Amino acid sequence: MPAYATNMRLKFPIVALVLEIVTIILFAVFVVYDDGKHHGHSEYTNGTHHTANPMELYPMFQDVHVMIFIGFGFLMTFLKRYGFSSVGFNLLLAAFGLQWGLLMQGLWHMHDGKIKISILEMINADFSTATVLISFGAVLGKTSPVQLLIMTILEITIFSINEHLVVNVLKAHDVGASMIIHAYGAYFGLAVARVLYRPGLRNGHENDGSVYHSDLFAMIGTVFLWMFWPSFNSAIADQGYTQLTAVINTYLSLAACVMSAYAISSLVEHKGKLDMVHIQNATLAGGVAVGTCADMNIGPFGAMLIGFVAGIISTLGFKFLSPILASSLGIQDTCGVHNLHGMPGILGGLAGIVSVALGKAEKHQSAAPTALCPFFLLFSGSPAMQAAALASSLGFALIGGAVTGFIMKLPFWGQPPDQNCFDDSIYWEVPEEEDENEESLAHADHSKNKAEA
Amino acid sequence: MPAYATNMRLKFPIVALVLEIVTIILFAVFVVYDDGKHHGHSEYTNGTHHTANPMELYPMFQDVHVMIFIGFGFLMTFLKRYGFSSVGFNLLLAAFGLQWGLLMQGLWHMHDGKIKISILEMINADFSTATVLISFGAVLGKTSPVQLLIMTILEITIFSINEHLVVNVLKAHDVGASMIIHAYGAYFGLAVARVLYRPGLRNGHENDGSVYHSDLFAMIGTVFLWMFWPSFNSAIADQGYTQLTAVINTYLSLAACVMSAYAISSLVEHKGKLDMVHIQNATLAGGVAVGTCADMNIGPFGAMLIGFVAGIISTLGFKFLSPILASSLGIQDTCGVHNLHGMPGILGGLAGIVSVALGKAEKHQSAAPTALCPFFLLFSGSPAMQAAALASSLGFALIGGAVTGFIMKLPFWGQPPDQNCFDDSIYWEVPEEEDENEESLAHADHSKNKAEA
Amino acid sequence: MPAYATNMRLKFPIVALVLEIVTIILFAVFVVYDDGKHHGHSEYTNGTHHTANPMELYPMFQDVHVMIFIGFGFLMTFLKRYGFSSVGFNLLLAAFGLQWGLLMQGLWHMHDGKIKISILEMINADFSTATVLISFGAVLGKTSPVQLLIMTILEITIFSINEHLVVNVLKAHDVGASMIIHAYGAYFGLAVARVLYRPGLRNGHENDGSVYHSDLFAMIGTVFLWMFWPSFNSAIADQGYTQLTAVINTYLSLAACVMSAYAISSLVEHKGKLDMVHIQNATLAGGVAVGTCADMNIGPFGAMLIGFVAGIISTLGFKFLSPILASSLGIQDTCGVHNLHGMPGILGGLAGIVSVALGKAEKHQSAAPTALCPFFLLFSGSPAMQAAALASSLGFALIGGAVTGFIMKLPFWGQPPDQNCFDDSIYWEVPEEEDENEESLAHADHSKNKAEA
Repeated sequence: MPAYATNMRLKFPIVALVLEIVTIILFAVFVVYDDGKHHGHSEYTNGTHHTANPMELYPMFQDVHVMIFIGFGFLMTFLKRYGFSSVGFNLLLAAFGLQWGLLMQGLWHMHDGKIKISILEMINADFSTATVLISFGAVLGKTSPVQLLIMTILEITIFSINEHLVVNVLKAHDVGASMIIHAYGAYFGLAVARVLYRPGLRNGHENDGSVYHSDLFAMIGTVFLWMFWPSFNSAIADQGYTQLTAVINTYLSLAACVMSAYAISSLVEHKGKLDMVHIQNATLAGGVAVGTCADMNIGPFGAMLIGFVAGIISTLGFKFLSPILASSLGIQDTCGVHNLHGMPGILGGLAGIVSVALGKAEKHQSAAPTALCPFFLLFSGSPAMQAAALASSLGFALIGGAVTGFIMKLPFWGQPPDQNCFDDSIYWEVPEEEDENEESLAHADHSKNKAEA
Repeated sequence: MPAYATNMRLKFPIVALVLEIVTIILFAVFVVYDDGKHHGHSEYTNGTHHTANPMELYPMFQDVHVMIFIGFGFLMTFLKRYGFSSVGFNLLLAAFGLQWGLLMQGLWHMHDGKIKISILEMINADFSTATVLISFGAVLGKTSPVQLLIMTILEITIFSINEHLVVNVLKAHDVGASMIIHAYGAYFGLAVARVLYRPGLRNGHENDGSVYHSDLFAMIGTVFLWMFWPSFNSAIADQGYTQLTAVINTYLSLAACVMSAYAISSLVEHKGKLDMVHIQNATLAGGVAVGTCADMNIGPFGAMLIGFVAGIISTLGFKFLSPILASSLGIQDTCGVHNLHGMPGILGGLAGIVSVALGKAEKHQSAAPTALCPFFLLFSGSPAMQAAALASSLGFALIGGAVTGFIMKLPFWGQPPDQNCFDDSIYWEVPEEEDENEESLAHADHSKNKAEA
Repeated sequence: MPAYATNMRLKFPIVALVLEIVTIILFAVFVVYDDGKHHGHSEYTNGTHHTANPMELYPMFQDVHVMIFIGFGFLMTFLKRYGFSSVGFNLLLAAFGLQWGLLMQGLWHMHDGKIKISILEMINADFSTATVLISFGAVLGKTSPVQLLIMTILEITIFSINEHLVVNVLKAHDVGASMIIHAYGAYFGLAVARVLYRPGLRNGHENDGSVYHSDLFAMIGTVFLWMFWPSFNSAIADQGYTQLTAVINTYLSLAACVMSAYAISSLVEHKGKLDMVHIQNATLAGGVAVGTCADMNIGPFGAMLIGFVAGIISTLGFKFLSPILASSLGIQDTCGVHNLHGMPGILGGLAGIVSVALGKAEKHQSAAPTALCPFFLLFSGSPAMQAAALASSLGFALIGGAVTGFIMKLPFWGQPPDQNCFDDSIYWEVPEEEDENEESLAHADHSKNKAEA
């Protein structure tokens, strides 16, 4: 362990500093402020409103920002001794990821060799980090910050390729990103988790669980995600009534999802009790599942049906599928991202195929966030393209995740040994507990000993 | 207890699933997206601005949304062992309530047999859930989720009747809903609490109190409510300078209220110490009390006076009135909603009567959220109508709450026995405590035993 | 101690009530709602857009509001037994401070003898409280609420003088207030802390540290500050692309700052571990440091460079400089505001001098929040004026803070004795701990005894 810790002292700072310096240099070469002068014939004119005010999307951006940093960060604090890492590494990965995402996504949309940043690009950059934070949930507690930074670079790079393919080549609809963020992020993370499989954790780990107040911290994340999900699904929708449709569909899908998640949680649990893991996660599945067709004319009840089904599938997944994945397939999915993002993401993709086939997207045609030209309408709107988008997202996720997993598995990235998993004290100075102060004779240095063991 | 728990396993899921399926069917029949085509001669033209952008109110909506889900939810986490239920049932009731509220409120404003949803309707739906969450505070810790779902249906249904009467028939002003939400929600909840009176809790309950960190969680709720209250009171005000007036009045009333609440808390408490219960609640009374006349020309100092008085009344209520209500009238008001919403709500109603009598509403005439026609101006603005609105709100609350209480008292809704009150473990899987892990020999299974007792 | 506590019972309520009543009277005499009628030739026409909608800045205001009340409040909850005071006194001081700030700032901009309030004035009032909350961090745990109210009055009064001098006389740029809020607030607080030096705390205090969950509460503050800082730095910028520039610069500076803060924290800490104090604070230094030139054309990479350097300086300050300040200069800076606001604020001032010298401000000329006339352009834009603004801010801070400190040191404001520092129980009714309930024989009344010792 001391050898490990010493390595961290140099490895992590060097990796982080070098990455940031390289990023700053790339920004110096490529990135400029948007001055509003290239929008004449670009994607923005597809919308029903030309954005005269460059700050118009800023409140939407801030909602998404809160989801990324508070939502994802606190959702993962449910573990009893991994809260520092959950919210802290979440901040680290998202802060680096948004810079990397600006570059990777911007490469596909250069103007005179420059990447122009406006609020829309900042929203998309935040979105790109969401894929990493979802995958982080799958490997939570079992990876070093160096490994996670590597995952961030690779996952966002591959994401931006798949996004370009889905949105600009296939011209598929995915306004709320059920496929290109949620399904992609989940299966990418599951592939990484599979490669990093730890037989030593097969029988669980004493720190792989919650305490009372850690579950309450996690609810901060849950509720902020739940509240602002309508912004996530509508931020890049066409402005005006299309955006309103995306807000309403997401709002209603989430409300219906809460009801089914609570009902099924009580139904399947011991003596009808509710399980915090389900409430923290499955209540959000409606937001994931309605993403692809959020801006389509599926009707309020259609959105509610999608949310209702998503809540059921997600809760059942936590109860019955996750244990099987862990025991039979060697996929140890710490946060159950398969149940919150994976299956609901696929459900969203399937709902999108059906909705497009039924013509629900026709009146809201220009939903794609980065469509490049007015020819868009000629090619989009095909169920086959939607299916191809789903397949592409899953394919990039599984292959990209597996490759990334093997790179992360290289033995010099400081991966923690099994006994130090799910424990902040391997990466953080952790304060002594109140209890220990008071019971100093009995086991005063418990956590210190553990940390330095 | 096992019998009870077994019942929950079936009752709660069935009730929740049936309610949601019925709701989805009703939405399929009645609810459509707002397409902006029916506003020509509707209420919106009373305002100073015609809303061209259907998303204009969305940031206001999100502020209200945060108040409902984070604000109310975390405010009630002050109890040491009831945090899961506080924030969790808050989410459940609000998620169902907003769907029910959309239906009940929409029934009064149908267009061609359809309820049209826009951001304004979503704000009003969130508002309707606030009544339930206020009442939830009065019975916190003493009711099952099935009972609470029943209360949600009945309270929102009755609320929408009273709201229609106050706003469209009486044409009374209540932009921030001091009367129709706060006073209504509080006295409805107090009536329910009276009917559900538990003699066994007369001498308190060991779990009816806070611990250090539960009080900090509650402050998350307090501060978010405090910050966003200007949005609550101005969300449905006429846009432009009237809305600005509502924001300024609420902002200043709350600021003055903080000062008086702190001062009085210190004055009446043991050795001049501040009491967290007062700080968590009475600091918000200024937002409640300024609600009715928030959009009126009462002057910044008028708003501050209202807030100042509200902070005093509310704090004194917690200190002196609540114990009397419990001991003499059998009203066990867990969160003290009488002090935060009841008395300040009445104060707001009275301030509204005085303000209208003084002509303060004249320059801000079209404050009512759902006024139906231009004839509005002929009838509104009368102090008598304001008084009638207050009386109506209290009457519907007390009678509706009493009836609802008797229905909730029926013996098959899974109401918890006295000894399991204020304890999450009767409805939730609760993790073992950290302490218990470490002190495993002494009392390892303390909470388990308690839960399954 | 009983004598002390008895004094508090009268002193604090009387001071708070008198202050609030005087404030309400001043508001009655001087303050009116903005009716939009005096903007014809005022500062607003300097901007690129005339604000037709008086609510346009409201979402920005709410972001700043969250930073003030949640951000600063929870950031200081890291102490194990001082969370009630941190978030509670933060609410008290900010609620009073914004009223006082409206008066003090408004005095310089009267129209016909009246102070007109709109959203812009509310943002500036919130800003004025930030100076107090920063200084509060320097003396956290060592001052009574009466002392803090006195500090609030004096610090905001002096702030408004310096702000007027910097913005309207020197015509300096400081859109994000690196100098007039952050450096000013920090050095003001440090001067107060120096005067209130406590030799008895030289060897630390058992409560001057965190526990696991108090560090997580503090992260709520950190992350909300981090997310909404772009609003802080852009709220009063010229609307349109200038405001967008301020948002982008702050967003990128903060992202780069996270990377350098994490890297340096790991580099300087024991065995490469991260230190929560650094993560909670130094990750925000990029927001402070980019403030002065946030709305200038420094380029995205320029903003990142500033943030990168700020993260390094801030972390090194916590590690190496703070202990020296405490031991050699007698400056006991509880929260390390010198590292988060002081040095990064000066860095921001220096960056502003350089940027103005390089002509980066030319295209964004009307950045000053309260410039009074079109002659602005003739005088501003000089590096010397920027330097004078920095010197003025530091001078007012050090002298004003020292004078304020001596007034606060007067022996009748209820300053806590050394042994009661960092302990809520001297000012708050603190609930018994869960542990103590369970281990009642051993040390049931531990905290009670301590509180009443």
